[in-house]
Amino acid sequence: MDNFYGPGRNHLFVPGPVNIPDQVIRAMSRNNEDYRSPAIPALTKELLEDVKKIFKTTTGTPFLFPTTGTGAWESALTNTLSPGDRTVSFLIGQFSLLWIDQQQRLKFNVDVVESEWGRGADLDILESKLASDSAHTIKAICIVHNETATGVTNNLAKVRQLLDAYSHPALLLVDGVSSICALDFRMDEWGVDVAITGSQKALSLPTGIGFVVASPKAIEASKTAKSLRVFFDWGDYLKFYKLGTYWPYTPSIQLLYGLRAALDLIFEEGLENIFARHNRLGTATRLAVEAWGLKNCTQKEEWFSDTVTAVVVPPNIDGAEIVRRGWKRYNLSLGLGLNKVAGKVFRIGHLGNMNELQLLGCLAGVEMILKDVGYPVKLGSGVAAASAYLQNNIPLIPSRI
Amino acid sequence: MDNFYGPGRNHLFVPGPVNIPDQVIRAMSRNNEDYRSPAIPALTKELLEDVKKIFKTTTGTPFLFPTTGTGAWESALTNTLSPGDRTVSFLIGQFSLLWIDQQQRLKFNVDVVESEWGRGADLDILESKLASDSAHTIKAICIVHNETATGVTNNLAKVRQLLDAYSHPALLLVDGVSSICALDFRMDEWGVDVAITGSQKALSLPTGIGFVVASPKAIEASKTAKSLRVFFDWGDYLKFYKLGTYWPYTPSIQLLYGLRAALDLIFEEGLENIFARHNRLGTATRLAVEAWGLKNCTQKEEWFSDTVTAVVVPPNIDGAEIVRRGWKRYNLSLGLGLNKVAGKVFRIGHLGNMNELQLLGCLAGVEMILKDVGYPVKLGSGVAAASAYLQNNIPLIPSRI
Amino acid sequence: MDNFYGPGRNHLFVPGPVNIPDQVIRAMSRNNEDYRSPAIPALTKELLEDVKKIFKTTTGTPFLFPTTGTGAWESALTNTLSPGDRTVSFLIGQFSLLWIDQQQRLKFNVDVVESEWGRGADLDILESKLASDSAHTIKAICIVHNETATGVTNNLAKVRQLLDAYSHPALLLVDGVSSICALDFRMDEWGVDVAITGSQKALSLPTGIGFVVASPKAIEASKTAKSLRVFFDWGDYLKFYKLGTYWPYTPSIQLLYGLRAALDLIFEEGLENIFARHNRLGTATRLAVEAWGLKNCTQKEEWFSDTVTAVVVPPNIDGAEIVRRGWKRYNLSLGLGLNKVAGKVFRIGHLGNMNELQLLGCLAGVEMILKDVGYPVKLGSGVAAASAYLQNNIPLIPSRI
Amino acid sequence: MDNFYGPGRNHLFVPGPVNIPDQVIRAMSRNNEDYRSPAIPALTKELLEDVKKIFKTTTGTPFLFPTTGTGAWESALTNTLSPGDRTVSFLIGQFSLLWIDQQQRLKFNVDVVESEWGRGADLDILESKLASDSAHTIKAICIVHNETATGVTNNLAKVRQLLDAYSHPALLLVDGVSSICALDFRMDEWGVDVAITGSQKALSLPTGIGFVVASPKAIEASKTAKSLRVFFDWGDYLKFYKLGTYWPYTPSIQLLYGLRAALDLIFEEGLENIFARHNRLGTATRLAVEAWGLKNCTQKEEWFSDTVTAVVVPPNIDGAEIVRRGWKRYNLSLGLGLNKVAGKVFRIGHLGNMNELQLLGCLAGVEMILKDVGYPVKLGSGVAAASAYLQNNIPLIPSRI
Repeated sequence: MDNFYGPGRNHLFVPGPVNIPDQVIRAMSRNNEDYRSPAIPALTKELLEDVKKIFKTTTGTPFLFPTTGTGAWESALTNTLSPGDRTVSFLIGQFSLLWIDQQQRLKFNVDVVESEWGRGADLDILESKLASDSAHTIKAICIVHNETATGVTNNLAKVRQLLDAYSHPALLLVDGVSSICALDFRMDEWGVDVAITGSQKALSLPTGIGFVVASPKAIEASKTAKSLRVFFDWGDYLKFYKLGTYWPYTPSIQLLYGLRAALDLIFEEGLENIFARHNRLGTATRLAVEAWGLKNCTQKEEWFSDTVTAVVVPPNIDGAEIVRRGWKRYNLSLGLGLNKVAGKVFRIGHLGNMNELQLLGCLAGVEMILKDVGYPVKLGSGVAAASAYLQNNIPLIPSRI
Repeated sequence: MDNFYGPGRNHLFVPGPVNIPDQVIRAMSRNNEDYRSPAIPALTKELLEDVKKIFKTTTGTPFLFPTTGTGAWESALTNTLSPGDRTVSFLIGQFSLLWIDQQQRLKFNVDVVESEWGRGADLDILESKLASDSAHTIKAICIVHNETATGVTNNLAKVRQLLDAYSHPALLLVDGVSSICALDFRMDEWGVDVAITGSQKALSLPTGIGFVVASPKAIEASKTAKSLRVFFDWGDYLKFYKLGTYWPYTPSIQLLYGLRAALDLIFEEGLENIFARHNRLGTATRLAVEAWGLKNCTQKEEWFSDTVTAVVVPPNIDGAEIVRRGWKRYNLSLGLGLNKVAGKVFRIGHLGNMNELQLLGCLAGVEMILKDVGYPVKLGSGVAAASAYLQNNIPLIPSRI
Repeated sequence: MDNFYGPGRNHLFVPGPVNIPDQVIRAMSRNNEDYRSPAIPALTKELLEDVKKIFKTTTGTPFLFPTTGTGAWESALTNTLSPGDRTVSFLIGQFSLLWIDQQQRLKFNVDVVESEWGRGADLDILESKLASDSAHTIKAICIVHNETATGVTNNLAKVRQLLDAYSHPALLLVDGVSSICALDFRMDEWGVDVAITGSQKALSLPTGIGFVVASPKAIEASKTAKSLRVFFDWGDYLKFYKLGTYWPYTPSIQLLYGLRAALDLIFEEGLENIFARHNRLGTATRLAVEAWGLKNCTQKEEWFSDTVTAVVVPPNIDGAEIVRRGWKRYNLSLGLGLNKVAGKVFRIGHLGNMNELQLLGCLAGVEMILKDVGYPVKLGSGVAAASAYLQNNIPLIPSRI
Repeated sequence: MDNFYGPGRNHLFVPGPVNIPDQVIRAMSRNNEDYRSPAIPALTKELLEDVKKIFKTTTGTPFLFPTTGTGAWESALTNTLSPGDRTVSFLIGQFSLLWIDQQQRLKFNVDVVESEWGRGADLDILESKLASDSAHTIKAICIVHNETATGVTNNLAKVRQLLDAYSHPALLLVDGVSSICALDFRMDEWGVDVAITGSQKALSLPTGIGFVVASPKAIEASKTAKSLRVFFDWGDYLKFYKLGTYWPYTPSIQLLYGLRAALDLIFEEGLENIFARHNRLGTATRLAVEAWGLKNCTQKEEWFSDTVTAVVVPPNIDGAEIVRRGWKRYNLSLGLGLNKVAGKVFRIGHLGNMNELQLLGCLAGVEMILKDVGYPVKLGSGVAAASAYLQNNIPLIPSRI
């Protein structure tokens, strides 16, 4: 009845799509509804307000596109820029690479600022570019908050400081796909102009909503941006927002109710508590990696990611084999190394609806896999290191005290 | 607990999103999975093969975009055409109008062939355009198979005949959103180059998959088409098809399993039986409308739609009030009249996972609403006319004989 | 994939198990939980309080047995009576017959008061028995509030009057299986000592909870009742109630959460509104039966049931064939005639989570079936009669006004 | 929205109710159906055949009572015995104690053979009783296969040997609640006359089906057994089995479909593979307990249970506090010590739908809890010991090789 059945739970530790809370699965298990009845606009109105909270913006305008992160990128770019516009974009891993590829195919003029994979965006180069751009030819800075392929978190506050320091008017476009709702993201404080994420990441939903939130400045830019767009056009949405019907085309009823349930859980736990939980999960993972005698792909602590850890495997070991073995023997889903780091790393996604004991089960599994593939790990060593930290830091569950 | 709760089932008779079979809702009630594991490619491979069957194509290449019908339109256009290309497009209702709007915003040069709303595409004009286009400046014919706003089905076989008669190489792009899987659609036989539909229509799924199927000629055209596209680009998909991993970005795991369940049900019932069922539902609805003394928005039998019926209301009655009342009093969801026919019609969607007794419940409801709003309907008259036909024509359920 | 698949919804009109609201199905779609954690007792405590409301009792003690109505009967009897005890029991249809059979097998001394099937309990005979029982040898009166097999509702207020008139201390044990939560049931006002129902009836849940509510007098009786019981013993429950853990053995976690959702919906609609809705459904059904020229099995208006209607078929027609045909051709599930009225009636259950348009779809289906089997019904006649009444009487849905 | 919400999964390690596979949850997420239609009997017929396989019987007759294990006990006893009948029953923990209590309340004459909690049934005493019972006054031997309170598995083959050695005709009644479908249970080979289990244990369903399987000899005994029973009576079921309608009263439609899905998964994995998996889980748990320096409540290896491990805590530690802390801090549900061993042990249930990484997550959690409550455990020690064993013994998942 199930082509790849294995007993017990699948242990899902890819950095997306992530584990969905049962409450959300339940909320989505429903028939379609007429999206033009009063119910769906009323639901949408509340969702839009609440989505702003998880982006930490009061002035932004959110759009819930029926698409993926790739579509959300496209919406961010095509609504704010015109073909030929100059952008500065940081290549630090597979996802920033794909976004740059998109920017180039959409005919923007991209200054690619490349770093070694495992390092963050090179902000010194950004500074020099800003310093030399008194003509303001740079129309947008495009940056991932967290590079999912390498587990690197960029310092967005710093980017804003630089823009401000040079009074540069470039738009700041941020891919928050593997950060928002897991890492502290401050749209208004950091002056982000467009921030995007996808439903299947830290929001812990199925794939299908591309969240795009635009600052007033971005909305203003959209009025003159010449990139062609229809499906991804903000203007159509804004027209329907004014009408109070909200949808230029049919949304997924199920995802809207799912998002409602997801947001309810997020607000119940509390955003800051969620960030703290992800920090615990990230820290515990890094301690385990260290205990195993392996290296984190992320080269410096300042870039450590609390949502995904890319673990560098020894030269004689194939990272892809680790992933395959996890799936075949332990019902454990780990993330592959991609592109430049294919085979050289495997990834542990520790974002979204997850708690510490789930992670420890995963770490115990990774240890056995490492042994399977011939790496001389001391079984229990990573779990011990992680547990020692966690046992000191896990708070009581507030609803159960 | 539910902001708009009413006892009993919601009677969903909008022409999309439509009723989802319980089997499909169940199949979708699941956690996320790693889409790079062997399970999802294996599932996808089978789905792509099976999707071809419902388009009646053996040579087409299907793409399952995480998008809506609007996105599927955009994918069809941008992959096959270049800005400035001349298209012939038929404006016969709100959805063909929206598609034309999209074509214009994407900078194609659109010959709009308008018909009165309630009439089909004017193929005489098409013929004259083809006849006078020996230079083959027309690059594509864009046509809806079924106009959802007016309940008009166009004759696609005839379009193909005309193209053949004039040996015209224009691409034939078809919006099959409210037809495919409900009306007989023959991609290969009719020489359709791109056919699209959406998951929330006759396939009876939630919104979220935009199906785009491309003929070999369309695939060929995509290699030179200059319209910018990334998210909607076929090339990225084709690259991943070759790799056997299928997905350039994250699909909805839930929709893939849902599609599997939906296709299983479709094949179990049989496509031809499904068409026959929709014909029964459409015929029964039209008989009821006639019995009520009301007019079908569709002006001629040749255009009658078996998936949606737009009912013209008398001048003193507001079609929107009928829809509102259905929702407020009877838990019945009917379709609004849109744009030019706003207030002048209301629509009964009778497509997707629906049987005759569901329709009769709806018709009984419409009768009461008509009475509510002051139209002197004879209660039971429409149901009687529909029943008389249905009682002669409903087959036994094969699995229960 | 489904052995008896038919397109569209199954139209479920048996008088139990009845249609479950989607909200309840969703609430039940969950993993098991530890029933000894604080969560389940907290949930149970609230449920017990709320169950009292639907029985209209403030002094009763509810028990939620993991069983069916048959088990609830047994719990009512064995906790209050001793073998050899005299009961008066009314045989008016298949379910009262089965209860009497149970009473006899449990070795009670049953005075069976039989009525023709289609008539209510003979309260004149009850009166004469009470009048002649100054020795109070009658220990309990056992009566169904609503006989599901014939669609007959007994007058419980009258039973109480008689007991009071003769100051008779007999316990009043009531089977409210097809009444409670659909018909007005007043445990305290009517001095009912044990009332029972099953989750799969008007509460609109799956089968699996046998509700037993005991008056203080019944609880008192349980202390001396000598019938053997363990699983069905109230004493074990009362012990765990005191401990605050509530469950002497493992309950169904899913049904507890389902019951929570069901009660939320019931309270949102309002009990009196639910009774009114059932009265509309019952009245509409009876009007349809009359319009078809058929007879209600229930012989007098005073016994008309608002939860189930048994329709007498003409002598040349087999009621079972009507039910079979409904299932085979129309995906309509009707109730069979049972025992004495097997073949002579078919039953329409109109209880639980159902609205008027669902019923009208059913009635339209019954008309076609009647025609199928050779009965000269005028198609649309029953629907017309029902609609005429309903269109005057359906209120607006409060949450949508 | 959830009174006791905590992020991530609940880690459910009580010895019932246990984790339900998602496939089963999905299969149960459905509306009610008419249980008298052809669909439910067809489904039931197959289920009854397949249930026999998991009891390893070809001659037994299964009954699927809508009840719990307590009800199944009652059904086993009342159908085979008469009040006053002598039984031999082994008291080795809380559940055998409760069964004995039931036997006594049902007025059987019970020879209680008590062992220290943590030891198995004293079969020497059984032998002496059989030896001295040439008059065959012992009518039944009642024994738990696995005592859930202490984690002790009895040797049923040995019981059969003794009965055979003395040619004693006593019925052999077995509580297989926490064994069947997890431990090897051989009804026919061991000459078990009635075996029972509950759906919420190793079958990994919700609570609600009490499985009772009767040997031909037990069926024969039921014809003369004088214990009163109606709800639990086999005779009513047998009557309906003959009719082919199977159900004397309404079953849970959802549980029947759930059981179908559960059995499909069981047969896909293979019974012997399931037993091996439970042995791995049990062995790993015992190795962890040893590594922690703690004692297994089970005193000898011959009685070790592969479904539940009761861990003895040091005198200064309260086992209940361990359970409370698991729930409050780690979202981990462990089993309490019951009755005589309350506070002295906590229990880890490792039965049903569970895999090794789930268990390792639990063990890591237990380690942190032990530290929390002041026990000087070496973090990671139990996980290391368990992993070392598991890494050598876990097979590849057959469907993924």
